Amino acid sequence: MSSTDVSHIAADAAAHAQDAVASGRLNEAIEALAAFGGRSDGGVSRETLTPLDLQARRHLIERARALGCEVRVDACGNLFFRRAGQQADLPPVLTGSHIDTQPVGGKLDGAYGVIAGLEVIQALNDASVATRRPVEVVVWTNEEGARFGPGAMGSSAFAKPERLTGYRTSRDAAGVTFGAALDAALAQVGDVNSCPLGHPVHACVELHIEQGPVLEAANVPLGVVTGIQGVRWFSVKILGAAAHAGTTPMEVRRDAMRAAMALANRLYACADAARAQGLRMTLGRWRVDPNSINTIAGDVEFTVDARCVDEAVLAGFEASLRDAVTNLDASDGYAAQVQSLFARGMTRFPPEMAALIERGCARAAANAGEQAPIRLTSGAFHDAMYVADVCPTAMIFVPSRAGISHNAAEYTEPRQLYLGAKALAYAVTELACR
Amino acid sequence: MSSTDVSHIAADAAAHAQDAVASGRLNEAIEALAAFGGRSDGGVSRETLTPLDLQARRHLIERARALGCEVRVDACGNLFFRRAGQQADLPPVLTGSHIDTQPVGGKLDGAYGVIAGLEVIQALNDASVATRRPVEVVVWTNEEGARFGPGAMGSSAFAKPERLTGYRTSRDAAGVTFGAALDAALAQVGDVNSCPLGHPVHACVELHIEQGPVLEAANVPLGVVTGIQGVRWFSVKILGAAAHAGTTPMEVRRDAMRAAMALANRLYACADAARAQGLRMTLGRWRVDPNSINTIAGDVEFTVDARCVDEAVLAGFEASLRDAVTNLDASDGYAAQVQSLFARGMTRFPPEMAALIERGCARAAANAGEQAPIRLTSGAFHDAMYVADVCPTAMIFVPSRAGISHNAAEYTEPRQLYLGAKALAYAVTELACR
Repeated sequence: MSSTDVSHIAADAAAHAQDAVASGRLNEAIEALAAFGGRSDGGVSRETLTPLDLQARRHLIERARALGCEVRVDACGNLFFRRAGQQADLPPVLTGSHIDTQPVGGKLDGAYGVIAGLEVIQALNDASVATRRPVEVVVWTNEEGARFGPGAMGSSAFAKPERLTGYRTSRDAAGVTFGAALDAALAQVGDVNSCPLGHPVHACVELHIEQGPVLEAANVPLGVVTGIQGVRWFSVKILGAAAHAGTTPMEVRRDAMRAAMALANRLYACADAARAQGLRMTLGRWRVDPNSINTIAGDVEFTVDARCVDEAVLAGFEASLRDAVTNLDASDGYAAQVQSLFARGMTRFPPEMAALIERGCARAAANAGEQAPIRLTSGAFHDAMYVADVCPTAMIFVPSRAGISHNAAEYTEPRQLYLGAKALAYAVTELACR
Repeated sequence: MSSTDVSHIAADAAAHAQDAVASGRLNEAIEALAAFGGRSDGGVSRETLTPLDLQARRHLIERARALGCEVRVDACGNLFFRRAGQQADLPPVLTGSHIDTQPVGGKLDGAYGVIAGLEVIQALNDASVATRRPVEVVVWTNEEGARFGPGAMGSSAFAKPERLTGYRTSRDAAGVTFGAALDAALAQVGDVNSCPLGHPVHACVELHIEQGPVLEAANVPLGVVTGIQGVRWFSVKILGAAAHAGTTPMEVRRDAMRAAMALANRLYACADAARAQGLRMTLGRWRVDPNSINTIAGDVEFTVDARCVDEAVLAGFEASLRDAVTNLDASDGYAAQVQSLFARGMTRFPPEMAALIERGCARAAANAGEQAPIRLTSGAFHDAMYVADVCPTAMIFVPSRAGISHNAAEYTEPRQLYLGAKALAYAVTELACR
């Protein structure tokens, strides 16, 4: 066949799969998964590798087997549900996300992408579409990083298996290592075949809620994610002198919190100046010592989360931060230092992947009488960020009401969830048929 | 006798007692008490009503008995060591301080005033001075407030006994109530006569380290404390909206920490404007929620400690604080509130008490070839603050090296400690002879 023929056949199969997606079934599957750790406020508490997470994994394994999938697990606990392709030896098309939550999360963050992946397989079955390549739904381990840091362990270890050794030593608040929790989880899936960590993948599409306000504000149900903004994390420490709030005159104080606030104000000014270039800056975590009502702070530490789609803007911000800290360090009586905690450059998904996503989204939206998709970048990390290091990757977003996520109030309209799964079905099927 | 004759006799006795104070004995007694909870870094860890504190109390009881004192204890655990006067029915002259410490404190904060009180009794014995009134050395319970809040429980319950009921319900970090700890302490001094809480007192003098830098800077060994500055404590709460640091554009954020910092800057500006009037302001304790590197703060709470010798300045500051909080509350998307936690007006010691202290200090300093005393106000709370509610009260300060206290590095020169005890002997004796 000519490549035009292949494209035509692939698009035809993609349309069939898209049309076979069922809204009610999708919603029921979302609710069924949300029951594991479901809360009376509508949220879900299901941190990674807890008993509830293991029960939820078992639930998905049984669902996947019922759909005819082969189930495998790798050394990082990532689960793969494979629907066979006509050519079994070809690398699969991957989709999926994660099912772990923040201490209090919603029903959709991560879970939606996994459930929609299984819905795609159901739709392929129902439409009797035979794909050339296998289609694989993945459940990545510990995306949230809430129990064990860092986040996205499963996907980053998949992309670079040597990372797992370090991850295994990460401890939760109770002192349990990720390695110990992982071994216990693997022991509970002894009936599941294991697979090597990091097998070849043809392409990957991740469907996720936006967790931001952009799609809602634009009143469109589907977003074509062109990339994930770059991020740099820092810790800033300021050492002053703890002293008695009552006896120490203002002019002799070395108040570390006051110095930290002056520094923070400079950083906000830098961030405001770069706002038009898309810089986002958050000073989220603070430690004040001795943190006593009648003692001047002697020691303050805070974190800086800076993100941007433009690496040059991020680099400029980092330079300003380091300059401000150096100036503070040189001023009377203070010591200040900045430490880089994490940095990841802008992730750019391949244009041909975005074009494919856009076709799938546009078809689903048009058939539903909805607005055409828009393109946007992701402000949040996703497993796709790491998968993009090893294969052509893309993401689809659906709106988050009021931009709220990591919260029991997280919500997306069922019609939007339905369109997202349809767009995913199209993209995965076309990729698997080429 | 004429009042002139009485004054002459009293001054003569005061001079005899002052001259009988012994430096070596004083220092040995300070070291002996510091052994209870002494640390290898030179500090002392002896929180109130702990086993170490109870051992230290027993040590002092035995010392006082060896000096011929009658020992009594009240319902708040305050210990009184009484040297009889010629007229047993007259209210005593009170001196002393506390022996509890911060989690890590020095050898002198509080302990010095108690040990110097016992040294005064020893000096009176050695000089065979018979005073008209009894002289009583007090060990106040829980001045620091480190284990059980609030501080100065013993002296404030002495001044107003009905406060004890509420204090008994205060809990330490382990959940033990002050009442339970107190009952256990009282059970261990079953051999000590009890006395009512809040007996009549003729006058009170408390000797203490300055815990600030004023005397050291002035290079004088003794300070006449004219009062204790007023204090107002507040808690400020700011409610914004927690949101994802990556996905939330800067222009739609309601970052509670950023709002708190803007408010804090206004407060610093107010404090700076009133610095010349002696205002001291500290924003010491912070709680940031959820306090996560990649989440915008949704909820911030911080404390304000404002102190001044001028009530009008404190009132003006409070008005500015309330105004700033109201303005923030009215601004887009934030809710803010201020709560008063504690307020105590300026304590002014009677001028005639200050004059007496000054005579005692001046004589001791002149005889040692040291600089004459200066007058100052106390920036810190002391038990004398509450005792001043029930009788004429005064304080004497000795220098604190580098102003450091609540720290193992707390230090005062032995010659200064010696002069402080001499000044105390003079003041107590003169008061007891009139």
